[in-house]
Amino acid sequence: MKTSHFNVIEEVSFDNPLFIEALPGIGHVGKLAADHIIEEFNGVKFAELYSPYFPPQVFVDEDGIVENMINEFYYLKARNDEERDFIILVGNTQGLSPEGQYDLCGEILDFVEGYGAKEIFTLGGLATGHPIEESKVFGAATDIETIEVLKEANITIRSADGGIVGASGLFLGLGKLRNMKGACLMGETPGYFIDAEAAEALINKLSILLGMEINTDKLDERAEETKKMISKAQQLEQEMMGKKNIGQGEDDLRYIG
Amino acid sequence: MKTSHFNVIEEVSFDNPLFIEALPGIGHVGKLAADHIIEEFNGVKFAELYSPYFPPQVFVDEDGIVENMINEFYYLKARNDEERDFIILVGNTQGLSPEGQYDLCGEILDFVEGYGAKEIFTLGGLATGHPIEESKVFGAATDIETIEVLKEANITIRSADGGIVGASGLFLGLGKLRNMKGACLMGETPGYFIDAEAAEALINKLSILLGMEINTDKLDERAEETKKMISKAQQLEQEMMGKKNIGQGEDDLRYIG
Amino acid sequence: MKTSHFNVIEEVSFDNPLFIEALPGIGHVGKLAADHIIEEFNGVKFAELYSPYFPPQVFVDEDGIVENMINEFYYLKARNDEERDFIILVGNTQGLSPEGQYDLCGEILDFVEGYGAKEIFTLGGLATGHPIEESKVFGAATDIETIEVLKEANITIRSADGGIVGASGLFLGLGKLRNMKGACLMGETPGYFIDAEAAEALINKLSILLGMEINTDKLDERAEETKKMISKAQQLEQEMMGKKNIGQGEDDLRYIG
Amino acid sequence: MKTSHFNVIEEVSFDNPLFIEALPGIGHVGKLAADHIIEEFNGVKFAELYSPYFPPQVFVDEDGIVENMINEFYYLKARNDEERDFIILVGNTQGLSPEGQYDLCGEILDFVEGYGAKEIFTLGGLATGHPIEESKVFGAATDIETIEVLKEANITIRSADGGIVGASGLFLGLGKLRNMKGACLMGETPGYFIDAEAAEALINKLSILLGMEINTDKLDERAEETKKMISKAQQLEQEMMGKKNIGQGEDDLRYIG
Repeated sequence: MKTSHFNVIEEVSFDNPLFIEALPGIGHVGKLAADHIIEEFNGVKFAELYSPYFPPQVFVDEDGIVENMINEFYYLKARNDEERDFIILVGNTQGLSPEGQYDLCGEILDFVEGYGAKEIFTLGGLATGHPIEESKVFGAATDIETIEVLKEANITIRSADGGIVGASGLFLGLGKLRNMKGACLMGETPGYFIDAEAAEALINKLSILLGMEINTDKLDERAEETKKMISKAQQLEQEMMGKKNIGQGEDDLRYIG
Repeated sequence: MKTSHFNVIEEVSFDNPLFIEALPGIGHVGKLAADHIIEEFNGVKFAELYSPYFPPQVFVDEDGIVENMINEFYYLKARNDEERDFIILVGNTQGLSPEGQYDLCGEILDFVEGYGAKEIFTLGGLATGHPIEESKVFGAATDIETIEVLKEANITIRSADGGIVGASGLFLGLGKLRNMKGACLMGETPGYFIDAEAAEALINKLSILLGMEINTDKLDERAEETKKMISKAQQLEQEMMGKKNIGQGEDDLRYIG
Repeated sequence: MKTSHFNVIEEVSFDNPLFIEALPGIGHVGKLAADHIIEEFNGVKFAELYSPYFPPQVFVDEDGIVENMINEFYYLKARNDEERDFIILVGNTQGLSPEGQYDLCGEILDFVEGYGAKEIFTLGGLATGHPIEESKVFGAATDIETIEVLKEANITIRSADGGIVGASGLFLGLGKLRNMKGACLMGETPGYFIDAEAAEALINKLSILLGMEINTDKLDERAEETKKMISKAQQLEQEMMGKKNIGQGEDDLRYIG
Repeated sequence: MKTSHFNVIEEVSFDNPLFIEALPGIGHVGKLAADHIIEEFNGVKFAELYSPYFPPQVFVDEDGIVENMINEFYYLKARNDEERDFIILVGNTQGLSPEGQYDLCGEILDFVEGYGAKEIFTLGGLATGHPIEESKVFGAATDIETIEVLKEANITIRSADGGIVGASGLFLGLGKLRNMKGACLMGETPGYFIDAEAAEALINKLSILLGMEINTDKLDERAEETKKMISKAQQLEQEMMGKKNIGQGEDDLRYIG
């Protein structure tokens, strides 16, 4: 595999869809929220993305079956005139290298623009590093009109002394260059564990912004599944630590197995 | 050398060959097992692979002769109707960078598919970090049918909270995307030394899966040879540590000599 | 985005312009000096550069609006016969990888050569690591004639036991290969803070070299704004530290969010 | 600059030239020996190589003039029938990334093969990490005939438990794939300082192998000049350490200046 590859599973068209990105990140707040929404509303997977920019590894599921590193596109069709079509991007990884990140974000924006997407929401977490009484939701956006929309939903606008690293930031930045509008919503989290409360806070704000009720009763269950994926990632990290010392005499050779 | 290069030594064709990968990895369990099988059954080298994705170095053999970083393809022809043709991939290195790993695995799968290979076994180790009484063999696979075959051979199915890093994982993952079936067998090992016992356990399971008796009497001898290769790798690593401090003022310049 | 992209905002032509580079670097001395000059003389932004070689992130401004990583080209038109046209390159980042640095510097030199630029000034800092009584300005150049010009302005010629890392050095080196002449001016700074005094010393020397008076009254104000940008960068760095530990089991996956 | 660039200064042809590589490395033993030979025999520079795979920086000479990272090709014409033509490769850097090393070595071999070179000597150091009474010279080669030649010159054949990292190893390995013969000579050195004694031992062995007397009286002088280059490299390294902490919030951004 030399280039990223989109595998379209179902031919489908959308009416001005909102593109929602929720790849793994801080506290996996965004991923948890998006996975919950997909499950709650019976989202349909219509495309997959495989890429040489992903980590060179596989996960193993509960049956011992290998799973590729993958990004997955789900859709949710509007159920009435108040709602919109959604394209939701989830997965078990992001691009590994900086240039891979740019390449993947660009390809994915091409892909969703092909479906008519002109707006982007990216979901993530904001790590505080200390316990939180009640998880706030922070927001940033590509333009002042969208900032106003966030404020109306009582989302705290992110202060100037920060930035957004990775896909959640890059989709907005590269989208802005294509005249796509968008916002990043970040659930405040201590970090370092799967934060269902931060995801719930995030979902509640999404609920307002999207004008649709989202039940969060099953969120804790879903958090358990996300924990399993994280656990795999941590186990792989430990393995690689060990491998580095028996490798090919090369600091960078972390990938032997 | 700008691209990877296959050097085909012997024109040969196979009948539905099984592709077995055993590049260097944890405890060099897979490599040791594969090298032993090649020697035991007089495997024939029919192709070599050189790549700019390998570490920029050479090894030196007992006569002072330089050896390129290399991946090598051997074949074993079926000796009767119960057996199969094998293509076995061994070598002294894996790809160095993540993108190099993807590129090499893709090119190698193209190569073996060209010989009609539709099934893959990857051989590796599973590091425990502590002493082991009796080395178990763990398995994962691309599909549930293959998992059943592994279970029949009393191979322990790898639990869900893990993954497989590097070639052993990636060949299965990328193979799965091409509708190739396969399994990874991992000999449990403390890691950090050449584990002939883990390799023996692995060979015994292979023996069952492949339906052919494999004598392991000479395995300890073979382990000694593998130790030499590892020793070279470690010596190179130490050299590079030293070089970093006298280099070009650049953290990444680990390759001067 | 697969390649760097120049976005030309205003069609403009110049008369033998001097190209001045002042991307972020040590103590942000060069950036601070250049930003001040642009503001003081009402510089006009005429082109932008976006690149996949920049860090995969965005900054967030005081209103919560995301800002892409960017390099920006401003011009200052000569106000009289004694002055020259200037093309000034500023921005919030440099290329991230070594090969990205070479690629970007080459593309930018192509760009400014297209406007007739044959001379380069690069502005930077020289970190001492200890407090400084009065900030000296050090200089290096592509040729001995330019060295003489620097000496006449009482600029200390940089001693032989050094070098210049990054854009400030590379523009001169790659420029020299194209027969462009140039100098690097480095304001001595303890480093580790936004050094308005070093920037003032640098501006005073530029004032002599360019033959134009440059008022520095508002420099401290400008330093405050630069501090905000640095603060964002540091906050992002801390975030990434945290992220590394909850990431995809991969040391290099620093970009998740 | 997107690709490596050869700048041929003098059109020249050779009679079966020996290609000698001596880029910076351990103890700079090889570089010191080669620079001495070039000076002693009035070697003529006939080509230069610039590359985006070099570190993104410049050095500054004693006059404050910037020097590009560079590889340089010198020739020495045979003075009588016993001698051979030499192409000697020296410079102030090697390729930075593993893939850059492969690319550069391949391009350089193409270049010298174009001049009829079929044999390679690479010169380097072998670090012991402890004081040495008398510096031995170690050797490795592409073939057993060349090993015999080394043995006749009382060069110690490198034991099997090692390898050669970087250009000195890669030129031999990639050369071997092109049917070029060659040897690597390594002067034993404690490392960490410019080792004129190791270089002298190396030159004495070269003297035997090449059948020409090489005066080493001026070697200490030459060692002083090499020290200056190393000092620059170390100073750049320290600068970069400082820069990392004030950079763009990115671990990899080591190149700002």
